[in-house]
Amino acid sequence: MKRTFKTQARVAFADTDAMGVVYHANYLRWFENGRTELLREIGFPYTELEKWPIWMPLAHASMDYKKSARYDDLIEIVTRFSEVGHASLVLYYEIFNKETGELLVTGTTRHGITDDKLKPIAIKKVYPGFYAVLKEALGDG
Amino acid sequence: MKRTFKTQARVAFADTDAMGVVYHANYLRWFENGRTELLREIGFPYTELEKWPIWMPLAHASMDYKKSARYDDLIEIVTRFSEVGHASLVLYYEIFNKETGELLVTGTTRHGITDDKLKPIAIKKVYPGFYAVLKEALGDG
Amino acid sequence: MKRTFKTQARVAFADTDAMGVVYHANYLRWFENGRTELLREIGFPYTELEKWPIWMPLAHASMDYKKSARYDDLIEIVTRFSEVGHASLVLYYEIFNKETGELLVTGTTRHGITDDKLKPIAIKKVYPGFYAVLKEALGDG
Amino acid sequence: MKRTFKTQARVAFADTDAMGVVYHANYLRWFENGRTELLREIGFPYTELEKWPIWMPLAHASMDYKKSARYDDLIEIVTRFSEVGHASLVLYYEIFNKETGELLVTGTTRHGITDDKLKPIAIKKVYPGFYAVLKEALGDG
Repeated sequence: MKRTFKTQARVAFADTDAMGVVYHANYLRWFENGRTELLREIGFPYTELEKWPIWMPLAHASMDYKKSARYDDLIEIVTRFSEVGHASLVLYYEIFNKETGELLVTGTTRHGITDDKLKPIAIKKVYPGFYAVLKEALGDG
Repeated sequence: MKRTFKTQARVAFADTDAMGVVYHANYLRWFENGRTELLREIGFPYTELEKWPIWMPLAHASMDYKKSARYDDLIEIVTRFSEVGHASLVLYYEIFNKETGELLVTGTTRHGITDDKLKPIAIKKVYPGFYAVLKEALGDG
Repeated sequence: MKRTFKTQARVAFADTDAMGVVYHANYLRWFENGRTELLREIGFPYTELEKWPIWMPLAHASMDYKKSARYDDLIEIVTRFSEVGHASLVLYYEIFNKETGELLVTGTTRHGITDDKLKPIAIKKVYPGFYAVLKEALGDG
Repeated sequence: MKRTFKTQARVAFADTDAMGVVYHANYLRWFENGRTELLREIGFPYTELEKWPIWMPLAHASMDYKKSARYDDLIEIVTRFSEVGHASLVLYYEIFNKETGELLVTGTTRHGITDDKLKPIAIKKVYPGFYAVLKEALGDG
């Protein structure tokens, strides 16, 4: 079973636009929050990874918009790993309206796993402990 | 031949993050700029469409990150239509470093064509003049 | 004694810039969060006020920057009313590094109290209950 | 006579909020644009200053909001130096609606002049050429 992690956010005017709803780019910020807290939860906060050094540069992002979030909505971000590759990671996100339960946005981000020179790192070989935890969090380890 | 439209932007500190590069979500703002100016260029600025009323809610967005833009880089956004549907539009974007010519980011956004109640509009039937221009801009009209 | 309200936030990459610290404009977003939660706390969430209708357009904002917040810092925003006027409100904010206790940023925002046409409202007269609670929260009511 | 510098921007949905107007924090981004282009104009682009190294950390910012900018408005940012200190600079900004000529927002930012360790630099002594140009731009040199 895949391990998921939940975070919450309250929609501010700063997040919205003149259409009256959350500006589409801002969901990526909540994806970042979900990813950050998921890494912290499994014991590898990004601030620690940076010291090894491991960087996770973004290679791809996509979002599907189903319903809009509005000012002062309480939203829930559900984050999980969906792929642990040789030197890459894919995460999957779902954003819900916490009060109505409606699914608002889904998305995915693909990250390289690199050193601080952006050189790919074969995580399984170089950081087997981290790799094991990622596979376990993925749910098929 | 497809019609493309070019806009430029200068990367500000506001656009960057602590990795020293443009924060990934901010490319979507430049996609918005490219889309806005493309619509103006073909004679249908969004502020006019809103009066008919036509709205173009975002249904999907994706981005592929190839190289990073950095503080004070001059970038060029190349925007084109890649699909004109029954009640939808797809646009395709390329962002280049204007000085080096390097391709930094590509992406796509899919929009519904709706009224101000988010009800889909069959543009070909309801707004044939707008549809004809979109098809011409698409390059296969 | 003045009533204060505390909220917390975790600094994301989205909040930082290429200087490695939080981009100066983003503290205003945390001021907004503090203000929103303070209004909710005293029983008058902004979403309710909008229904009366009361709007609180910003007339002035200022910030003093003492220390920088950095990626993944946990910050605390302390918000209080500092003035309840005839048709205006002033709030005062302090942002601390939650772990070190250091004061990072102070600031103030001045808001008009208006209807939805931006016409000033004499709150004491028109909404005496709201006015009484504001004065009590201010601490000299 | 003080030297002023003008830049323009087009308001995007990204800049607006659910009140239908530009979100107040976003004017600071346009102040940044004005400041950046003013430094470039007088021959000292910030990317060059960073090599000396000179940094200009923000110590204070304030904004007065008079009228709102709205989606697709063309705005003009007028930037000038208002004070050249021992190891500090103050800039003053005015943002106009370019089409109607209305003054929308004024503001000021105060910056330290430091090295890359944030140690103050007495510009007149250490960089007399830069100091002379700043005084000339200020208009009382």
